[in-house]
Amino acid sequence: GNAGVAQAAYCALANIESIVFAPKYASREKIASIMIYGSRVFLVNGTFDDASRIARIVAEKLGWIYNGGVINPIRQEGKKTLAYEICEQLGWKAPDWYIQSVGMGTAAIGAFKGFKEMVDFDWINGMPRMACVQAEGCAPMVKAFKANSEVIEVVKEPKTIASAIAVGNPAGWPLLYRALKECNGIVEAVSDDEIIEAYKAIAKFEGIYAEPAAAAPLALVKKLREFDVIDANELIVCVISGFGLKDVSTTLSVVEKPIEVSIDIDEVLSKL
Amino acid sequence: GNAGVAQAAYCALANIESIVFAPKYASREKIASIMIYGSRVFLVNGTFDDASRIARIVAEKLGWIYNGGVINPIRQEGKKTLAYEICEQLGWKAPDWYIQSVGMGTAAIGAFKGFKEMVDFDWINGMPRMACVQAEGCAPMVKAFKANSEVIEVVKEPKTIASAIAVGNPAGWPLLYRALKECNGIVEAVSDDEIIEAYKAIAKFEGIYAEPAAAAPLALVKKLREFDVIDANELIVCVISGFGLKDVSTTLSVVEKPIEVSIDIDEVLSKL
Repeated sequence: GNAGVAQAAYCALANIESIVFAPKYASREKIASIMIYGSRVFLVNGTFDDASRIARIVAEKLGWIYNGGVINPIRQEGKKTLAYEICEQLGWKAPDWYIQSVGMGTAAIGAFKGFKEMVDFDWINGMPRMACVQAEGCAPMVKAFKANSEVIEVVKEPKTIASAIAVGNPAGWPLLYRALKECNGIVEAVSDDEIIEAYKAIAKFEGIYAEPAAAAPLALVKKLREFDVIDANELIVCVISGFGLKDVSTTLSVVEKPIEVSIDIDEVLSKL
Repeated sequence: GNAGVAQAAYCALANIESIVFAPKYASREKIASIMIYGSRVFLVNGTFDDASRIARIVAEKLGWIYNGGVINPIRQEGKKTLAYEICEQLGWKAPDWYIQSVGMGTAAIGAFKGFKEMVDFDWINGMPRMACVQAEGCAPMVKAFKANSEVIEVVKEPKTIASAIAVGNPAGWPLLYRALKECNGIVEAVSDDEIIEAYKAIAKFEGIYAEPAAAAPLALVKKLREFDVIDANELIVCVISGFGLKDVSTTLSVVEKPIEVSIDIDEVLSKL
């Protein structure tokens, strides 16, 4: 989804041929975006993991570059720059907490690399604690973390409103697991109801329209505050990683219906 | 549409109650955006002009602020900053041409004010020529411009893919007309086919996903080059004023269908 859109846009600008494999449940907005940028799209009758595996095999067979999240080191070099941007904008200090929703885990692994480099350079005083968030309906990392294991138990049928993180077999887990251990981090799950609550709150109170997966970090913050894991005076950065317009159907399913009126002023006034 | 989305987002952040009147043909994406930000939406069974008129009357009757494009001077003060940003990013010079799609005309009028102030301040050497663009299916300004008239002949039934500029009775015309005269500007129409061509080209070659109305300036540039109104060595700035995801149905109507495949590699390879 999101990675496919980004790939399509940058390949358009660089005049590189691009093909995207997506699961058939990918949102129409993401598919439309990928196609208008000129990439071909294969809709796979399966999960994110199926699409990902097919892309890897096809790339191997044909000698193309596989733009896979965790396997491709260039992706991490790109992702890590978000950590640099955060610290730069904070006047070269790290936040106390870095909160990120995780599907494959690429963004979190990349950010961890960025923070670590900055500590090595003495640009910041120390690492932030990383709190990663998954949806309850697809939380293989949470389960493995609680079991202190680098081995994922695959979720065959992810079931969550947060489609962008519905990854049942995340290849990045061993890397992310070690990163979390090193920075005293955690990975925790939130329910779809909690995600929707955060999704509405961040739009209504901050004027930020995030897609559900991108609102999950705020839901986690609320939970971690309730359990006193995060203190009220700590500096928290939530990464909002996807724009709400990428999944309009979800929005329409959680807001009220608009009020339909004729062009008669009295009718309008009576319905105000 | 777009103005309603912006109003809803900023009101959310500022904790101000907001109501948006939109024509019933406004895209579901725009309506979803407005509602998730917490604004109430009235869908008027009529045109943009009907919705605009009802909003103005309701605001007058109830003593609320009417956020109308041209009547509200604060809007122009906001819009003019885009001219400042353009000249700043060009190292404090004006482009030769400033190209803008126009519905109400607010953005063009605001930008004109900004350029003029910078000339007065001696921040730039002279005014750019402004070229405004409308869709052939709703081009009341083009008609009035050709007739050298400040009076609009209302387009009762706008018919164009560029819904964001489908304004049949633009209140801003007298102001824009004088601005165009002063900067040796023009307003010209392009067809929906030309808009769609530009819409696809800007995505495919620049990696920019614009809504149709926002791609119209590029269609106009092509036309003005063909007629040698614009020289090849002139510096042109096109304002791309709306994101493509605000109208996904249009995208899906102009791109090819994605290719559906099973999880069988041989099938995938055969369809590549």
